[in-house]
Amino acid sequence: MQWRELPAIYFEDPGSPVERSSYLIELHTDDGGSYDIVSDASSPAARECCAQQSSARHNWEMNYQEAAIYLQEGENNDKFFTHPKNAKALAAYLFAHNHLFYLMELSTALLLLLLSLCEAPAVPMLRLGIFVHATLELFALIVVVFELSMKMRWLGFQTFIRHKRTMVKTCVLLVQFIEAIVVLVRQTSHVRITRALRCIFLVDCRYCGAVRRNLRQIFQSLPPFIDILLLLLFFMVIFAILGFYLFSPNHSDPYFNTLENSLVNLFVLLTTSNFPDVMMPSYARNPWSCVFFIVYLSIELYFIMNLLLAVVFDTFNDIEKRKFKSLLLHKRTAIQHAYRLLVTKQRPSGISFKHFEGLLRFYKPRMCARERYLTFKALNQSNTPLVSLKDFYNFYEVVGLKWKAKRSREHWFDDLPRTAFLIFKGINILVKSRVFQYTMYTVVAVNGIWILVETFMLQGGNFFSRNVPWSYVVFLTIYGVELLLKTTGLGPVEYLSSGWNLFDFSVTLFAFLGLMALAFNMEPFYFIVVLRPLQLLRLFKLKKRYRNVLDTMFELFPRMASNSSTYSTLSVSASSLGLTLLIFYYCFAIVGMEFFAGVVYPNCCNTSTVADSYRWVNHTVGNKTVVEEGYYYLNNFDNILNSFVTLFELTVVNDWYIIMEGVTSQTTHWSRLYFMIFYIVTMVVMTIIVAFILDAFVFRMNYTRKNQDSEEDNGIVLEKEISKEEVIGIIELYKRTSAATETAQLQKIVLQMDKYGQMSTVFLGRRSRTKSDLSMKMYEEEIQEWYEEHSRKEESQTPLQEPASASSSSLKPLSLRQRSQTVI
Amino acid sequence: MQWRELPAIYFEDPGSPVERSSYLIELHTDDGGSYDIVSDASSPAARECCAQQSSARHNWEMNYQEAAIYLQEGENNDKFFTHPKNAKALAAYLFAHNHLFYLMELSTALLLLLLSLCEAPAVPMLRLGIFVHATLELFALIVVVFELSMKMRWLGFQTFIRHKRTMVKTCVLLVQFIEAIVVLVRQTSHVRITRALRCIFLVDCRYCGAVRRNLRQIFQSLPPFIDILLLLLFFMVIFAILGFYLFSPNHSDPYFNTLENSLVNLFVLLTTSNFPDVMMPSYARNPWSCVFFIVYLSIELYFIMNLLLAVVFDTFNDIEKRKFKSLLLHKRTAIQHAYRLLVTKQRPSGISFKHFEGLLRFYKPRMCARERYLTFKALNQSNTPLVSLKDFYNFYEVVGLKWKAKRSREHWFDDLPRTAFLIFKGINILVKSRVFQYTMYTVVAVNGIWILVETFMLQGGNFFSRNVPWSYVVFLTIYGVELLLKTTGLGPVEYLSSGWNLFDFSVTLFAFLGLMALAFNMEPFYFIVVLRPLQLLRLFKLKKRYRNVLDTMFELFPRMASNSSTYSTLSVSASSLGLTLLIFYYCFAIVGMEFFAGVVYPNCCNTSTVADSYRWVNHTVGNKTVVEEGYYYLNNFDNILNSFVTLFELTVVNDWYIIMEGVTSQTTHWSRLYFMIFYIVTMVVMTIIVAFILDAFVFRMNYTRKNQDSEEDNGIVLEKEISKEEVIGIIELYKRTSAATETAQLQKIVLQMDKYGQMSTVFLGRRSRTKSDLSMKMYEEEIQEWYEEHSRKEESQTPLQEPASASSSSLKPLSLRQRSQTVI
Repeated sequence: MQWRELPAIYFEDPGSPVERSSYLIELHTDDGGSYDIVSDASSPAARECCAQQSSARHNWEMNYQEAAIYLQEGENNDKFFTHPKNAKALAAYLFAHNHLFYLMELSTALLLLLLSLCEAPAVPMLRLGIFVHATLELFALIVVVFELSMKMRWLGFQTFIRHKRTMVKTCVLLVQFIEAIVVLVRQTSHVRITRALRCIFLVDCRYCGAVRRNLRQIFQSLPPFIDILLLLLFFMVIFAILGFYLFSPNHSDPYFNTLENSLVNLFVLLTTSNFPDVMMPSYARNPWSCVFFIVYLSIELYFIMNLLLAVVFDTFNDIEKRKFKSLLLHKRTAIQHAYRLLVTKQRPSGISFKHFEGLLRFYKPRMCARERYLTFKALNQSNTPLVSLKDFYNFYEVVGLKWKAKRSREHWFDDLPRTAFLIFKGINILVKSRVFQYTMYTVVAVNGIWILVETFMLQGGNFFSRNVPWSYVVFLTIYGVELLLKTTGLGPVEYLSSGWNLFDFSVTLFAFLGLMALAFNMEPFYFIVVLRPLQLLRLFKLKKRYRNVLDTMFELFPRMASNSSTYSTLSVSASSLGLTLLIFYYCFAIVGMEFFAGVVYPNCCNTSTVADSYRWVNHTVGNKTVVEEGYYYLNNFDNILNSFVTLFELTVVNDWYIIMEGVTSQTTHWSRLYFMIFYIVTMVVMTIIVAFILDAFVFRMNYTRKNQDSEEDNGIVLEKEISKEEVIGIIELYKRTSAATETAQLQKIVLQMDKYGQMSTVFLGRRSRTKSDLSMKMYEEEIQEWYEEHSRKEESQTPLQEPASASSSSLKPLSLRQRSQTVI
Repeated sequence: MQWRELPAIYFEDPGSPVERSSYLIELHTDDGGSYDIVSDASSPAARECCAQQSSARHNWEMNYQEAAIYLQEGENNDKFFTHPKNAKALAAYLFAHNHLFYLMELSTALLLLLLSLCEAPAVPMLRLGIFVHATLELFALIVVVFELSMKMRWLGFQTFIRHKRTMVKTCVLLVQFIEAIVVLVRQTSHVRITRALRCIFLVDCRYCGAVRRNLRQIFQSLPPFIDILLLLLFFMVIFAILGFYLFSPNHSDPYFNTLENSLVNLFVLLTTSNFPDVMMPSYARNPWSCVFFIVYLSIELYFIMNLLLAVVFDTFNDIEKRKFKSLLLHKRTAIQHAYRLLVTKQRPSGISFKHFEGLLRFYKPRMCARERYLTFKALNQSNTPLVSLKDFYNFYEVVGLKWKAKRSREHWFDDLPRTAFLIFKGINILVKSRVFQYTMYTVVAVNGIWILVETFMLQGGNFFSRNVPWSYVVFLTIYGVELLLKTTGLGPVEYLSSGWNLFDFSVTLFAFLGLMALAFNMEPFYFIVVLRPLQLLRLFKLKKRYRNVLDTMFELFPRMASNSSTYSTLSVSASSLGLTLLIFYYCFAIVGMEFFAGVVYPNCCNTSTVADSYRWVNHTVGNKTVVEEGYYYLNNFDNILNSFVTLFELTVVNDWYIIMEGVTSQTTHWSRLYFMIFYIVTMVVMTIIVAFILDAFVFRMNYTRKNQDSEEDNGIVLEKEISKEEVIGIIELYKRTSAATETAQLQKIVLQMDKYGQMSTVFLGRRSRTKSDLSMKMYEEEIQEWYEEHSRKEESQTPLQEPASASSSSLKPLSLRQRSQTVI
């Protein structure tokens, strides 16, 4: 290989950068303004620059840092107009961008949200004095003020007031501050609907990026949604008028006696919640009146509601693709910015390892020296000592790989003595055999049937008898033996690396804990025994389709904090959709509590049509006390937990009108508006969740259909070989920069190589496949077009080959262009 | 143009066909077996053939007919193994393939289905004596026997018993026959669940091709559906066991006291029908028990049910595409077969007009001579006198065009005198102006608000007062004037050719009829007045998205009998999906009537948990009679109409368990099975309907996004010019074959040309765009691949360029290959 002959050039690079970090420019102009951008090495300015060679190292450090920031911005989809513009801003930026700060942000937001558990209509157990919770609130708000001031320092006043989301947050903060002080002064809570706005503090958290994206996507899907909604309401009005004319002459029909009733009941009918009942009085009078209802439901429920889903699904798909495109191009631009800061004037065609290493030190401080070098080698596809821009474009795909030396030994017990090896080998073969697997499936199936029959037999008996049932012990023993065999046969690490094995393990553990609970008679833990049927889930490994379904299911629930992982920025995870739903719930719960707390109670609604559901009568028949309970008074807004349950019931939609009518009969009939708006909002969110699930599955199925050959994929794997000479070369480099820990790490590799007498080691880089990877493959052809179009645009604005333009000037047109897509 | 010089070759073609019709072969072998297939013109057999030249004309007629049959089979997606194989079969085929026969089929099937209105649990007004309806049934069955015997004659016994659908029909027929005779003999109806099978007679009808396709598609979507359904039921069982353990200690909880109750209630909970109620007893005892229900609903309802939709949607999409592909290739093969029968040995490179005309005479007997020639010219893209195979492949796209001479005059009033012309021109301009249109929208909007306010004002008053409200007259006058202006300005034909205008027209007509009804005090027609709000629908023209939606809606409902139109064989229309649903309804209604007729009545279910809903109490409070009605006894299976309404209520799902529990309390608890199976079946069908609507819309939206330039499309339009010489040439041809009507038709064109002094006329061919056209454009690239793959397969089996292979032998491998995709 050619490059091995020129280690000096490969590892050292005394040149100065083509572009200077903007912080550096700022610093120098602060110092006296003598620094100018070097466009030509032979110019007098270049000589001046050489005089400043003592600060060259400092210059490079600054460049590394800014490049790392650019790459982070690309990864997190932060717009470049929020890029810190000078050294002061940089300090604030670094302060505001670490996990400690993010955690503070998150915990403050959560504290503010949780306060509503203890405020005025509080959960009985958590009630706090007004003084206490108002002080807590003030404290949290002050922390938010601090956070915002840091942000202002970093963004500068100009950008700060241009950043919409931050401005909204500031306004809400102000209102909350005033209200908290008022509460403290008056020592009593007033109607504080504005508490619903507290959600914005959570939404603005760095860790809630996915939620923000969801909200944006929901708002983007709204226009077509609203159009169809209007169509829906329009038909509703027409049918309400028709229904009023047709059925109001029937005096035994309470549903259509006024136009308002007619409208409300047709709205409820749209949710099918009152269905056969609303038809019955007119159906009893004239059987043909059912035609009205059948036509109404066919048009509204079966046609327009599905149309709504179709429109949302379509818009959603379209937005997903556009988002993917813009993210991809954003990342590309970030890479270009970083690249320009890392090439030297002497060799403008690529980045040397020294500079790449410098970048990674800032970009991923936890990465060890070996991994940095492997990343560099993985990027460098041309085998020259420099990484060209084309190679550098793969940065985000490569930097997330976890590198491990490729083991020559296959099993964990390969190093053991002969006899032990043979035993373990035997277990290994047994455990991997089909016979063993199917035996286990049979055992699980038998266990399942056993549980079913057992449960069926003990109708109403005492479930938790003192003595442990022998079947329980037998099955648990079998599972225990299986677990033991698998752990020893495969080795603990390999065993636990499979999700399915992990599941087996935890279920068996639970069953064991349940047995303990039974044996030692610990009543509070009996519920664990009840979880036994979950064992049956293991049967789903049997069929490929189920494995697919469950794999997709797990893919749908990546960690919420997607910003910390390089790859899942695209995956609008279902869990973040759930969180989005919870945020809507929170807003509605606050509003509901402010208006409807304490309005429903047993026997409250005896004048309304739904009186039965709210009844609580305790009368004596003979000498037995009979309690007649309607229970619906439990669905109230008396505290935030109750409100959440009530809102969930409203989401499920069935019989929601009973709750609505109950509240309405105790307040005004305008409260119906609250329930109807809630229905429409949840309909939007639920439709989008459905569209999301549909999209995820259809996408995956299409993908697997397209790539049927590579069925079993274990994520993305890359292989790289490193020779001893290279390692020694890098050690030399590190020694010169006196980096002791890196040198020690690398020397370990050399020792390892010496031990096994190898001249080189092969390393494997792995990471799991993300939706971004899948999209890349799906849109392969289009991506090329996007790139071309993008680079045409870029070139017409800032020619990349002209290295002398200042970074700040090359940024301006970008930031202007991207402001229109500002985050909410 | 070159071909004008050789009219003789163009129109005449004395050669003999390359291939002979199989009927002809059959005939000749019947005559004495001396006829052999001609493989070489110079062989002795060829000379023998020349001796038979007197029968050449007859030969050609037979070829035309067989080619036409091939093309029809291609169009209707009839498999080629049902192709009539000899002259006797041909006669039966022709007898069984005309609209009279189809109508007989359809009416017999409908008669059989409608009989259930009059049988045992009959609709009171339509009750017939047992003797009468049994005789009617026997009569209908005899007609079916006749139909089947014709089919047997056509297919031959071998093919007949291999054709699955026909065999099933025969068996059902047999059973029905025996049962009908038993009923006649015993003079009393026994339990006749087999009546549910009567649907098969309807499904087998030629006009119900779309329904058959739907059913096939439903059955094809079943395997993945059932997988996910099992997952659903599996989780249900696990949760039922959990719920039983957790909640059965609570004695006030009636929902989980036994494992069976637990299962049934969780099944109902899946439909959300008993939602807050099922939770309430345990929620009242321990608020945290709501977690059980929330988790259950989240997994089952929000995750797995949507997964179901996703899987069905995906399978559906995939099947649609495969179906489109197989249909396309089937048509292509049909065209190849027809082509081979139409080329001559002298000129094997194409079909001359004479033979093409002969084909069309059989394929579309109603087509006039001009249209035949235009179709030929439209196909012929190379401007040679022959249509090559490549051109002939477009046959189906071109043959459906409706040809009209391109008018030189723009408006209908162009020929009127000057003054009248100016007046009408003025009206025309007025009517087409934006001001006029928006004025009308305003009027409609005002009218809508007026109606709303008016309705709101007369709460419970007398709606239909003697005197007609003046607002009604005013608005109607405005609409009338608008209608008049538009009709005169655009001409009646152009006015009524737009669907929107047609709608305007009919609504105005209805309003006018309503006015008449009011004015002349005809009470039964008052309902027409009530339809006034429908006027508001006109407002939807305003927005493009609504127009799109409504257009798609109309595309979704093409005529059910899609076999008669050349193009919509692909469009699984929503209306046929509705019919499919009705067929399922019919089966369930029959079963329901046999088992549950008369089991529910007022106060029937006082022992069950749903007693309230079936109560009918008539008690006196003071001196007023108060009727307490639960009305649910109306949801019964007492006759087929009631059953349909009850089944619709079950489809809507809300409160269906009340109906189930009512029936269960009067029969055994096994009847729950009926209701649960019905729920699952409707879930399947509804999911597929949803998938279908989703698919249609998403497809259309994708399509419009892809072709945003050609937004306003008026279907497919083709332009062809015909010169006078050509027409005269064709007249010559027809004169020789002494076809008087054709000659007369063509001479009219010549006269027209002479009148206007033109040397040629331009004709426009139009047809509406079908889903097949859209799919063609969407899959453009893939289609080419399919063709290539198909022709490779074809060539390896029967080389097309070798003209001498007998048609029967070339058919065999095809029919074998396609049998696996037999229709159900």
